[in-house]
Amino acid sequence: MRVNAYAAPAAGEPLAPATIERRDVGANDVLIEIQYAGICHSDIHTVNGDWGPQPFPVVPGHEIVGVVAEVGADVTRHRAGDRVGVGCMVNSCGECANCRNGDEQYCVPGMVATYAGTDRDGTTTQGGYSTHVVVDAGYVLSVPEGIEAAAAAPLLCAGITTYSPLRRWGAGPGKRVAVVGLGGLGHMAVKLAHAMGAEVTVLSQSLKKQEDGLRLGADAYFATSDPETFAELAGRFDLIVNTVSAPIDVNAYLSLLAVDGALVNVGAPAEPLAVNAMSLIGGRRTFAGSMIGGIAATQEMLDFCAEYGIGAEVEIIAADRINEAYERVLASDVRYRFVIDAATLR
Amino acid sequence: MRVNAYAAPAAGEPLAPATIERRDVGANDVLIEIQYAGICHSDIHTVNGDWGPQPFPVVPGHEIVGVVAEVGADVTRHRAGDRVGVGCMVNSCGECANCRNGDEQYCVPGMVATYAGTDRDGTTTQGGYSTHVVVDAGYVLSVPEGIEAAAAAPLLCAGITTYSPLRRWGAGPGKRVAVVGLGGLGHMAVKLAHAMGAEVTVLSQSLKKQEDGLRLGADAYFATSDPETFAELAGRFDLIVNTVSAPIDVNAYLSLLAVDGALVNVGAPAEPLAVNAMSLIGGRRTFAGSMIGGIAATQEMLDFCAEYGIGAEVEIIAADRINEAYERVLASDVRYRFVIDAATLR
Repeated sequence: MRVNAYAAPAAGEPLAPATIERRDVGANDVLIEIQYAGICHSDIHTVNGDWGPQPFPVVPGHEIVGVVAEVGADVTRHRAGDRVGVGCMVNSCGECANCRNGDEQYCVPGMVATYAGTDRDGTTTQGGYSTHVVVDAGYVLSVPEGIEAAAAAPLLCAGITTYSPLRRWGAGPGKRVAVVGLGGLGHMAVKLAHAMGAEVTVLSQSLKKQEDGLRLGADAYFATSDPETFAELAGRFDLIVNTVSAPIDVNAYLSLLAVDGALVNVGAPAEPLAVNAMSLIGGRRTFAGSMIGGIAATQEMLDFCAEYGIGAEVEIIAADRINEAYERVLASDVRYRFVIDAATLR
Repeated sequence: MRVNAYAAPAAGEPLAPATIERRDVGANDVLIEIQYAGICHSDIHTVNGDWGPQPFPVVPGHEIVGVVAEVGADVTRHRAGDRVGVGCMVNSCGECANCRNGDEQYCVPGMVATYAGTDRDGTTTQGGYSTHVVVDAGYVLSVPEGIEAAAAAPLLCAGITTYSPLRRWGAGPGKRVAVVGLGGLGHMAVKLAHAMGAEVTVLSQSLKKQEDGLRLGADAYFATSDPETFAELAGRFDLIVNTVSAPIDVNAYLSLLAVDGALVNVGAPAEPLAVNAMSLIGGRRTFAGSMIGGIAATQEMLDFCAEYGIGAEVEIIAADRINEAYERVLASDVRYRFVIDAATLR
């Protein structure tokens, strides 16, 4: 099956229309007619070659929402007509300790990324900037009623990336959670932590987006460019989720944690971070990291979002504006996620 | 009350006999006749001036075991004749959130260190290399029967320093715990983790102490100087307690952690440690730190040690061998803790 897509032909080159092959629907597969695909910063890093050589042409997109068009003979979990989603992975070994624990994203032989990955049959995966995709049913999520399709798409990456550490480190009533950075990930972290009942503070470089932050659910908003912020908030937070990929002064942020508090990176700065052991020891503090979430956790997150009426704040674009959208993401000029309308690819 | 002691007269100078003043026994105080005082590496750092200027003369010693000689009018917790211990702190504000939570070691205005600290009455504290000490009853621990006095002394610092992270990060049956370094702290970590029911692995620079390690309770012993060690043990541990204060390759040790695993530093290297965010993110891993433990946790540790017949492995020395012992600690020539017999000070 050949389908329309938008592909990066080579590292650093603009994306352009392309047609790609989707595999036949196997016994365990689901054919999805894509409705929306979010634009994640990772897409841009990948096609720019920031993360090393890629199997070009690359069709990015791992925030996919669509409708099931066909299922394989052995698929019971999904049916034609169901609204479904696909996130950052489309396969894993299924047998290692991590897969068995529901942490498929940490699959020991390696999860299969939704695009620019090598699937278990040896083919290269292509992502969601496309009209259709064929995915193993075990990696297809149900997108419940109650979230608009376009607003649901970013949940498949930005949503689970922030939901997972909030759950793992116990965000909830009586907990003080700070979110560093109010972008695609940060705005989801604010909505989710607020819905979980935590007291939420945004730590952003400036107060530019303060009004938005408070509207999204934050209880407080501080500018990190103001040194007073670090004095005022010393020892305050139980959990800080850092969504910023640029290097930060880790020790300054650790000083904002209460005893037993955790600073969790979901962004991955390229340079090593300098951590003073005393920043950790002087309060039994934790510096940790987290990467998306397993399939069961992703489903739990989608169900949670449906229950609380949470979706991403999106700007829907036609496919021919993808390159422009990339420029605007790099300039932090998006509130808060671009989502491609896949109808514009047909 | 003037008592005999061994004091460092100035930074870097050998310790020498001295007499010091102990305060009158106040309503909440306990006068302890000291039996044994352990020699902790911190003592050496402090008197050498490695940790900044100190109020010399300094009498070190924060691993103290003795017998209650007298109690103040309001003391109900201890009685004359009881065997008691004093660890790294002798006071704290008692009012901040951390003190109220039983984490007096993280007292916000600052705990009062057992020596070279400023007590709440403004006087400078002097430690356990002495015949007697007067301590607020709230900071005096009961040392249960079933642990020899000399073997109990190091529990007050080395014991609680390792017990606290083992408990906090869930060492127990089904958990794989690694201990980095088999010194004063490391040998306690091995004994405690083994008693808690964890599978214990020692990671030491060489296999020199392998026989000891296995005798103390380790199930396995690996040399970190052998690069094969890191390949063989990749992803294996739920918890790694790093007792080494020299800088380590944090990312190499993080690679030994399973998903959700924690590397916890109890030593404090002077230089910042370079942490790659991906070392954390690629397994939801934690890099943390921990410093001694609160008073209730210290009592819990002593009771646990009594129940499991755990004491430190000690070499008892007379006070006039303190300077020689310091040299040997610096040369890692002690198995595993020097303990001063305070009778030799009388």
